[in-house]
Amino acid sequence: MAILIVGSVALDTIETPLGKVIEVLGGAAVYSAVSASFFAPIKLIGVVGEDFPEEYLKILSERNIDLTGLIRLPGKTFRWEGKYLEDMNIRQTIRTELNVFEQFRPKLNQEHKSLSYVFLANIHPELQLEVLEQVENPQLVVCDTMNLWINTAREKLEEVLSQVDILLLNDEEARLLTREYQLARAGKKLLERGLKAVVIKRGEHGATIHTREGIFFAPAYPLEIVKDPTGAGDSFAGGFIGYLWQEGRSDFPELKKAGIYGSVVASFTVEEFGLKRLLEVSREDIEQRFEEFKELVSF
Amino acid sequence: MAILIVGSVALDTIETPLGKVIEVLGGAAVYSAVSASFFAPIKLIGVVGEDFPEEYLKILSERNIDLTGLIRLPGKTFRWEGKYLEDMNIRQTIRTELNVFEQFRPKLNQEHKSLSYVFLANIHPELQLEVLEQVENPQLVVCDTMNLWINTAREKLEEVLSQVDILLLNDEEARLLTREYQLARAGKKLLERGLKAVVIKRGEHGATIHTREGIFFAPAYPLEIVKDPTGAGDSFAGGFIGYLWQEGRSDFPELKKAGIYGSVVASFTVEEFGLKRLLEVSREDIEQRFEEFKELVSF
Repeated sequence: MAILIVGSVALDTIETPLGKVIEVLGGAAVYSAVSASFFAPIKLIGVVGEDFPEEYLKILSERNIDLTGLIRLPGKTFRWEGKYLEDMNIRQTIRTELNVFEQFRPKLNQEHKSLSYVFLANIHPELQLEVLEQVENPQLVVCDTMNLWINTAREKLEEVLSQVDILLLNDEEARLLTREYQLARAGKKLLERGLKAVVIKRGEHGATIHTREGIFFAPAYPLEIVKDPTGAGDSFAGGFIGYLWQEGRSDFPELKKAGIYGSVVASFTVEEFGLKRLLEVSREDIEQRFEEFKELVSF
Repeated sequence: MAILIVGSVALDTIETPLGKVIEVLGGAAVYSAVSASFFAPIKLIGVVGEDFPEEYLKILSERNIDLTGLIRLPGKTFRWEGKYLEDMNIRQTIRTELNVFEQFRPKLNQEHKSLSYVFLANIHPELQLEVLEQVENPQLVVCDTMNLWINTAREKLEEVLSQVDILLLNDEEARLLTREYQLARAGKKLLERGLKAVVIKRGEHGATIHTREGIFFAPAYPLEIVKDPTGAGDSFAGGFIGYLWQEGRSDFPELKKAGIYGSVVASFTVEEFGLKRLLEVSREDIEQRFEEFKELVSF
């Protein structure tokens, strides 16, 4: 068994005050798959164009990420270009070229359909629903979303939420979705829809995990240098679901640890541009930083 | 022995989306004194005008806060009027009337001068220096500041910093003062000046304590309703130094707990307008919420 991850595969051009990279491997499905692959075998569902570099496919398949579900369509790969100013919590999207992603329809083969751990990365809720319709025996479905879908496809998104176990979103999105400013209240309101847990990501301040048993605060690792925040949220999600898969349970104690692993993986991601740092990291590095998190909060 | 607290005593008019109060007891010295008084006897240095209500004096003196150093000058008390929009991290100052505060010159009597725990609430660095010149045997000096002084009195502020043990400031101020965006780096740079610890307050996300031994993350208590954030930072400071006074030590383990007590006290403050909630709270309530913080971060 593996984790099924569905979402975007992209060529990213990223500029931050500390540098610039052009058309590097990116996309929510990629960041989350690489992050989750520290803990679990992954099967990725996505689409690329004819121009997608072979070396990028190799990077993924070498890491226990099965690419049977990554289809190649005529045309160009999805491209995203973004720029971060000094306040890296705010990013400017310079350019989004959907390209082949526009025709993306997630098609699951029999093996994909049988998987019970599913991460629906941030894509249109309609596509997330199409995936859920095909999955035969879901045990844990985790889903991400964004302000665009809250604003333009709220009904479809509500339909998704009624079928997922855990929702990940950032503070701004939680406020937008619930129309509640206080995050503790926003989390509670989302739990009332039947979600098992809600993870509210707070950028450089960490994330909170809201459950019926209580709230848990996973801090962000206090890095002195952040080179590129792209993919931090997707890395968090990957580490989070990866750890839950490994444990085979998702009660509050496991959710807490999963949140810390999410923070750990995300902290490595942002240390370098794109996936550079994450691809160098070992499971041992992850465990070591996990231990450091204990020091960070124990009193 | 007691804690010496120097700073503003004010009549606050506050509007938030949840209500409005007019000319209630406020000011940085008041919030921090009330907060610290759960842990220690306090001696307050400040100034009020002829119009300052007797009942407000009574509230303070009934709480183990010595007012010998609170002088009354001809004229009106310092008034502040502020408004918070939904995002309570951002406040609009509607009106600041310095009144008698303009002539404030901290004068310490022999008893004040002998105190060894000092909190310099947010006032002009020149006044903070005047206090430090009078204190004869300081053991722990904690100081707060604000963007105004960083922008307009940086040299004087640097002089203050060279004489204090612990600096409290918010994330924006830490960035402004150090010209470093990453807070871990800003904290490190401030420690390099010889400070024993730096506390960076992050509003609704909590606070980080930076020391040479490491960083500690004190989360904010996840409140579902925040009625009025006024005084949260000063309450944190009061709880923080109060606990350190109680322990008589300020090594990393005590600093961590002090940060949690700071967060606990601040969380009560913001539950109601002005000092309303804080004045109802017992030491037992504080201990109970302190225990809840353990649940919030332990994994």
